[in-house]
Amino acid sequence: MNSIAFAKGHGTENDFLILPGSFDPTPAQVRALCDRRAGLGADGVLRVDRRDGRWFMDYRNADGSIAEMCGNGVRVFAHWLRSRGLVDEDHFTVGTRAGDRQVVVEGWTATAASVTVDMGPAEVTGVSTAHLASLQVAGLGVNMGNPHLACVLPGLDAARLQALDLGEPDFDRDFFPDGVNVEIITPLVDGHVHMRVHERGVGETRSCGTGTVAAARAALADAGLAEGTVTVHIPGGEVVVEILNGASTLTGPSRIIATGEVDLQGLSGREG
Amino acid sequence: MNSIAFAKGHGTENDFLILPGSFDPTPAQVRALCDRRAGLGADGVLRVDRRDGRWFMDYRNADGSIAEMCGNGVRVFAHWLRSRGLVDEDHFTVGTRAGDRQVVVEGWTATAASVTVDMGPAEVTGVSTAHLASLQVAGLGVNMGNPHLACVLPGLDAARLQALDLGEPDFDRDFFPDGVNVEIITPLVDGHVHMRVHERGVGETRSCGTGTVAAARAALADAGLAEGTVTVHIPGGEVVVEILNGASTLTGPSRIIATGEVDLQGLSGREG
Repeated sequence: MNSIAFAKGHGTENDFLILPGSFDPTPAQVRALCDRRAGLGADGVLRVDRRDGRWFMDYRNADGSIAEMCGNGVRVFAHWLRSRGLVDEDHFTVGTRAGDRQVVVEGWTATAASVTVDMGPAEVTGVSTAHLASLQVAGLGVNMGNPHLACVLPGLDAARLQALDLGEPDFDRDFFPDGVNVEIITPLVDGHVHMRVHERGVGETRSCGTGTVAAARAALADAGLAEGTVTVHIPGGEVVVEILNGASTLTGPSRIIATGEVDLQGLSGREG
Repeated sequence: MNSIAFAKGHGTENDFLILPGSFDPTPAQVRALCDRRAGLGADGVLRVDRRDGRWFMDYRNADGSIAEMCGNGVRVFAHWLRSRGLVDEDHFTVGTRAGDRQVVVEGWTATAASVTVDMGPAEVTGVSTAHLASLQVAGLGVNMGNPHLACVLPGLDAARLQALDLGEPDFDRDFFPDGVNVEIITPLVDGHVHMRVHERGVGETRSCGTGTVAAARAALADAGLAEGTVTVHIPGGEVVVEILNGASTLTGPSRIIATGEVDLQGLSGREG
């Protein structure tokens, strides 16, 4: 067997293969690893690398392309580093292609952790509208490094949110020339909101890290607040967003559910 | 970690978790293991058991229910037994809830094998018709232990088959009171056919073991033959079906791509 070590984990059901060894997969190997039937299956690969004297999250999308940052992935990555003794403090820095991220890993075991990640500023860029199936919505444009349209719908509750037919959003391409992630959000009640998200180029997902921060920003603004702490309920679980002094943090779970060895030969070709 | 050993494999992209230890999962644990985001992900679980002095494939569907037999799963199961030294001959018997199956494991390594499985008689039950999206089709009813409607479409080729909109089939419920698996098949050319399959209760799949045998039976009949050998091309790969003296065998690939340990605690609940 030409095999390499892997672990599988997820952050609010956004799932990843962790590659802790020196193996650097080609785009075709990433696609084969992430294939949900012929491979192990995942939304992406977190390669554990060191660059410039710190741990670096080399993130790859399931399609083999390189991504700058993944708010759910960085939690799982930090959990891996801390729980496997690669760092010996709960507060540390993770390098990503989008820059360094401060993380705090709490209550960790080999399997589970709660991880807080510095998400930078949630910058409001204006207001815009979108169509989703039969729904006409208005929301706040929020720049999290990637573009969001975060739409708080008056009177919406969790049950009605779940029943909505979202479909493919039709949005203002002058306002969002690079496409947009669209969040549909219930109004803030006792510090909680519920959210569904349509990620650009992907479709509806069970979780979107930057989307939960954009949603918290919009829900606070809808309630007349510039700062605050919001628990965001998403299909894949729940996270807590804090917006304070122009910065934001995202706290959410990480799970590392399995470790093993994967055979690279077995991934290639179909003939038995 | 409360962890158990697993392996992941697939037969023509119908994928399985092999549980080689003594662990006997509850239906909820099967669902958690087979969950493609929060778990390891698979179409089903193959628990390696011994009953009545032989190896027994304790097959569970991803939804936690028990299944009698799985034509693709039994290849992977036999490959596991032979490649891990649990049997020391290439010809042996695998017990299943549908009865004993004779298997032959050839050209095997730890990762790959070609496995032939006795599939029993392919009994023709009559002719019937179905609607699929805008398509009206007629075919042969074939009983493989489960019901099939195997439809050879005159003039269909691989490219046009791939472009077809199948949708949910509307069939004759008097003829198929328990539902039916519907195969759409190209006519036999030089011993080859191409097929797509809609499995009852599941939808379109990349492979269906009994469906490939039903397809071979129908393609041979369409060519005026009662017996023969047919290579069946399916979205997940290709298999060879032999129909002879009222019996049938299915030969196809097995892959075992990874082995590891999964943490049962990590599968339960979402809170980190």
